[in-house]
Amino acid sequence: MNYNHIKFMKLALEEAKKAKECDEVPIGAIIVKNNEIISLSFNTVEKDKSIIMHAEIKAILEAQKKLDSWRLEGCSLYVTLEPCLMCCGAIVLSRIKRLVYGAKDLKTGAVNSLYNTLNDKRLNHNVEVVQGVMELESSLLLKDFFKDKRKRNG
Amino acid sequence: MNYNHIKFMKLALEEAKKAKECDEVPIGAIIVKNNEIISLSFNTVEKDKSIIMHAEIKAILEAQKKLDSWRLEGCSLYVTLEPCLMCCGAIVLSRIKRLVYGAKDLKTGAVNSLYNTLNDKRLNHNVEVVQGVMELESSLLLKDFFKDKRKRNG
Repeated sequence: MNYNHIKFMKLALEEAKKAKECDEVPIGAIIVKNNEIISLSFNTVEKDKSIIMHAEIKAILEAQKKLDSWRLEGCSLYVTLEPCLMCCGAIVLSRIKRLVYGAKDLKTGAVNSLYNTLNDKRLNHNVEVVQGVMELESSLLLKDFFKDKRKRNG
Repeated sequence: MNYNHIKFMKLALEEAKKAKECDEVPIGAIIVKNNEIISLSFNTVEKDKSIIMHAEIKAILEAQKKLDSWRLEGCSLYVTLEPCLMCCGAIVLSRIKRLVYGAKDLKTGAVNSLYNTLNDKRLNHNVEVVQGVMELESSLLLKDFFKDKRKRNG
């Protein structure tokens, strides 16, 4: 396993933990270009009352602002959970080079689980995919969050 | 054809024309609930330098703000062009009831053209679809825009 992938995924996990502290589903994302961090973010769907505010979308919005361009060529997106349809669409549209993710999302994942959108030759951009980086840590963080939530809700 | 669908699609087309005036790809969207307009928007990808800023995403963001909830249950989204993967993902996540669209997008459409995401029984929400409302007008607006752009670019 590439050492950088682990280093950057650890940072994405730190972001996911920030989401948990705010009682948001713990998912974190970061965007990296030439080994430099361009943006860090975590899921704030509940706080912002918008399902657009997935960690990946927020990381993309911030990176586009920082690089002053909608093209994120040469960028890698690290995210703790397999992205959904919306986020995969945004990843393709913004020309991200590589996606590195942690845990699989069997219910809504659109990279390998339900769809293979990042490798669809009919689209005008394809994305390299590295999966399973710190998979256990990402997955446990989510499982514990939902277990605690069920307990609290009786 | 339902008269309301035409009435609301005409408003979405007016939004698309505003995009054209700003030299943006002319696509417009509106969200309606109980016959009341909740949000109107048009594509501003170039101005905002972000591919997240599709007309549909902007309409959803505004509607979620206005209704103070990420759940857009009972809402209809009218958009002049068949939505892409990102926008279809956002439509499903926000629980929109009905999508009404104008022209097909054979290259990236994710409602009927490349994918059938809004009718995927594996997802936890499905969306009613009405297609082809003011299709010709929506399609001509786009064709003319790209023809003019090619001319200007020599």
